[in-house]
Amino acid sequence: MTIRLHCFGESGHSYKVALALALTGTPWEAVKVDFFDGVTRGADYRALNVMGEAPVLEDGDLVLTQSGVIQDYLVGKTGQLGWTNEAERREVWRWILFDNHKVSSQVGAYRFQKNFLPEDKRKQDVLDFLQGRLLSALAVLEARLQGRDWLATSGPSIADLACCGYLFYPEDLGFERAEFPHVADWLGRIAALPGWAHPYDLMPGNPSDRA
Amino acid sequence: MTIRLHCFGESGHSYKVALALALTGTPWEAVKVDFFDGVTRGADYRALNVMGEAPVLEDGDLVLTQSGVIQDYLVGKTGQLGWTNEAERREVWRWILFDNHKVSSQVGAYRFQKNFLPEDKRKQDVLDFLQGRLLSALAVLEARLQGRDWLATSGPSIADLACCGYLFYPEDLGFERAEFPHVADWLGRIAALPGWAHPYDLMPGNPSDRA
Repeated sequence: MTIRLHCFGESGHSYKVALALALTGTPWEAVKVDFFDGVTRGADYRALNVMGEAPVLEDGDLVLTQSGVIQDYLVGKTGQLGWTNEAERREVWRWILFDNHKVSSQVGAYRFQKNFLPEDKRKQDVLDFLQGRLLSALAVLEARLQGRDWLATSGPSIADLACCGYLFYPEDLGFERAEFPHVADWLGRIAALPGWAHPYDLMPGNPSDRA
Repeated sequence: MTIRLHCFGESGHSYKVALALALTGTPWEAVKVDFFDGVTRGADYRALNVMGEAPVLEDGDLVLTQSGVIQDYLVGKTGQLGWTNEAERREVWRWILFDNHKVSSQVGAYRFQKNFLPEDKRKQDVLDFLQGRLLSALAVLEARLQGRDWLATSGPSIADLACCGYLFYPEDLGFERAEFPHVADWLGRIAALPGWAHPYDLMPGNPSDRA
């Protein structure tokens, strides 16, 4: 049975998994989550995922949530984008955790508040707070990528796919790539990987649906 | 050589690891991180951890960062607070990731902004934003703990120690335990585990140092 990924185009957390599926050549089909219609707050979706989040992956009877857990599962299933020893495995997880806490969480929230909230609900102090945290996190990635091609191992891994989850979107993300040249080069390397696709080309749904 | 944990009392992320060390009966010593003096922004600390965060664990020549990675290492080392099969391992990681993204990140930031920032730097809109996100995350924990004693497995695991990281602190955390009775009971079960200690008793440094 084909893997089904509950996802939507605007979800950078979903993109981390969709991109791992694409880059490993794993067959999958998308099930669109109508996030902007509030479906993730409903009882049916909460029965699927008590956390109320996308993505959710179904592989036969197995139901997985949290992009990091799903990425780890795909490493085991495909033998790609992973590690060759325990030290590398820890390094990959280290950057996935950093992403969840400091990168995607901040840039995802900034992007939502800045681009998808009605203007009268936006709070400049909140945007400034999120942007400050995001710029600190990007400075860490910039320092890490000085003299390295990939965040965790000698090749691309799910750590890179985690940290880049929100960074390819065209909306105002609160930073300019030119200010983080090593990050910009690294994003260029990711986008050059065979099978890479932009989030709005890989998953159903994008802001023009709501225009 | 005794395990050394770079930590400080106010750090809930450090507490997740210190508590895992305490509950597993692992010998360790604390190295105080002078976070409030800005040490984590300095070059020496960044050489230890490019992410500029606490905790950092040293076990002989091995240096580990990110509380989730360190907790995972301690499960492997002690055979405690972990899982019995792959499905349980994924479930534990699922809640560790939820914590990093939605629980500790929000309550940690709320607590800092509300209690440790000078009053003239506090922004009410930022506090409201963080509190809203925190209450949503606590509602997920509350739903999950209905009819269960522990978050991920049949006994206490590092998933529980991750999600509770900031919830024992005495400062204003933005929520009342009475509003989340299942969460309150679960925190009571954690505090009743043999070896449990309050963060300010387990690690060096607390707000009275700066009074």
